[in-house]
Amino acid sequence: MSAGAEDQLHQWLRNRLRRSGFDRIGDDGAILPAGGPWAVTQDHQIEGVHFPPQLDPLVIAQRLLAVNLSDLAAMGAQPVFAFLALSCPAEFDRHRFFSSFLRACQRFDTELAGGDLSSNDRVTASLTLLGRKPSKGRWLQRSNGRPGDVLWVAGELGFSALGRHLLAAGARLAGRRISLPGSIQLTSREQVLARRAVRRHLIPQPQLSMGRWLALRRRAAAIDISDGLALDLHRLCRESELGAQIDATSLSTQSGFSTVCRKLGIDPTETILTGGEDYAILFSLPPRVRPLGRQKCRRVGRLTACPDIDLVSPEGAIPLAVTGWDHFAAVDAAGA
Amino acid sequence: MSAGAEDQLHQWLRNRLRRSGFDRIGDDGAILPAGGPWAVTQDHQIEGVHFPPQLDPLVIAQRLLAVNLSDLAAMGAQPVFAFLALSCPAEFDRHRFFSSFLRACQRFDTELAGGDLSSNDRVTASLTLLGRKPSKGRWLQRSNGRPGDVLWVAGELGFSALGRHLLAAGARLAGRRISLPGSIQLTSREQVLARRAVRRHLIPQPQLSMGRWLALRRRAAAIDISDGLALDLHRLCRESELGAQIDATSLSTQSGFSTVCRKLGIDPTETILTGGEDYAILFSLPPRVRPLGRQKCRRVGRLTACPDIDLVSPEGAIPLAVTGWDHFAAVDAAGA
Repeated sequence: MSAGAEDQLHQWLRNRLRRSGFDRIGDDGAILPAGGPWAVTQDHQIEGVHFPPQLDPLVIAQRLLAVNLSDLAAMGAQPVFAFLALSCPAEFDRHRFFSSFLRACQRFDTELAGGDLSSNDRVTASLTLLGRKPSKGRWLQRSNGRPGDVLWVAGELGFSALGRHLLAAGARLAGRRISLPGSIQLTSREQVLARRAVRRHLIPQPQLSMGRWLALRRRAAAIDISDGLALDLHRLCRESELGAQIDATSLSTQSGFSTVCRKLGIDPTETILTGGEDYAILFSLPPRVRPLGRQKCRRVGRLTACPDIDLVSPEGAIPLAVTGWDHFAAVDAAGA
Repeated sequence: MSAGAEDQLHQWLRNRLRRSGFDRIGDDGAILPAGGPWAVTQDHQIEGVHFPPQLDPLVIAQRLLAVNLSDLAAMGAQPVFAFLALSCPAEFDRHRFFSSFLRACQRFDTELAGGDLSSNDRVTASLTLLGRKPSKGRWLQRSNGRPGDVLWVAGELGFSALGRHLLAAGARLAGRRISLPGSIQLTSREQVLARRAVRRHLIPQPQLSMGRWLALRRRAAAIDISDGLALDLHRLCRESELGAQIDATSLSTQSGFSTVCRKLGIDPTETILTGGEDYAILFSLPPRVRPLGRQKCRRVGRLTACPDIDLVSPEGAIPLAVTGWDHFAAVDAAGA
């Protein structure tokens, strides 16, 4: 006697989870063990909004986890528990999705502890993560900046946005291979870079080890760059009640990036500053403290007592506009 | 200088929350104070799937919270923190939604502690709740039943499903008033009942005080009836490794209910057993323990060592089929 497909999927999940000594799925919610305090993050991923339609369930699962892990990283937290609400069409390959999700959880030492399933004509997933700070660590906060602190970025800027533009122009993921749009001519080196951009967009790389390292510093401010460097820098500055000077030359990228941008008709600097979905970390540290060489961080500027936020180049300083990946701004501004 | 509409909404929310001494929105996630252990629940609400299109944002917010509170109630937990991911069209009245959500949170002693906002062509909301058990209480679990324990239901069965059918037939909420479909003729007493059913469907009544009372008993099994009594009873029995006998006469309702069902062309017993979205609690207690009179619980049967799950009437016992509100069962069965 079958207790329904949803229950079957639960059963399959329980069997998978039981192997790892975990058996809390099945009640109306999960009971967490004592411990904490906890950092909690929550993010949506909706087909056609956050990722292209018909994306491989394997990739959707990885993307969903990565986007949320990136938030935890910017808090200096290490992931512990995940709660997943998934809504999808009946034909969506849920086993492929969950297999991929559980593998990704394992890689990042995270346990799927509960969730909710329902049907919908498009894939809609919401993930809540609970994380702990490393022992002897501090939570990273946006408000921890001090005048004179140096601003750094861990992770690549603009690549994810370039990938989004390439997908909009027709790039596709087929199996493990990315096909590029036929409408633009790219050299083989540019093709490698373009494929990397698409991959980076679809599956961001959360900066967990960077977040962990920062949480162990005496003082650091940090923010997840999800809406573009310009907008997220303004947010960090506002919380720290400071201004900033960004060194324009620090934002230059490898030559291929600019060429591919131009071939797509987009501005490379604009893409770096406001493209969004980088899931890199912008952070500040006292001038004496430097990230380790292997962490591959980029020094991008410094915090100032003066509240202006400027882009400084050899030609002078210009205000850095507050623009970025703001879901509602355009429409609300038009209606205001 | 505007930091974008999303930031403006954050700011408005922060100002509202600060009044209650709460100021954790603004970082990439929330930091919970030490404490716990925590019960965690998560639920989706999607326009056109879980509630009718164009529903008043005020009602969507109340429904979203109520559905999740119902899960906590069935665990014996009291709500403490809420995390909300909202995705909606630009024209959706987010202030109305959040005002309503915050009022509802206040009523249930819950704090909005974080979340995520994005744009989408239909309203999609996901809520995560963290709750604590009452001091000296126990978590309620589905597996706590013993043979001979009495089965009870707190909350109304079938009303929510009747409301869903009325909405499908054309019932509408306009302001505070519910207009009923013109296609069916109802007496004024039936109209009152029908309006109550629609309201019950749109805004379920979480059984928090019942859950709290149960958590303080020495032994109780409980489950949130969200997918229909039949299916959720099977789940409780499976977890407790028991069978059950349900007393058919205990499921009879006030006469108006059956009449309205028949006028809509639906079977009243079927609606009560499998209609779903009741957000009532099914629970078991040792025979000596009885809910208080004011808790208005209905005694519906008992748990048995024999694994059969039967509906018992003066005419005899028939197996209670495992059917209910299973989002994927129909499609999967067709494809199997």
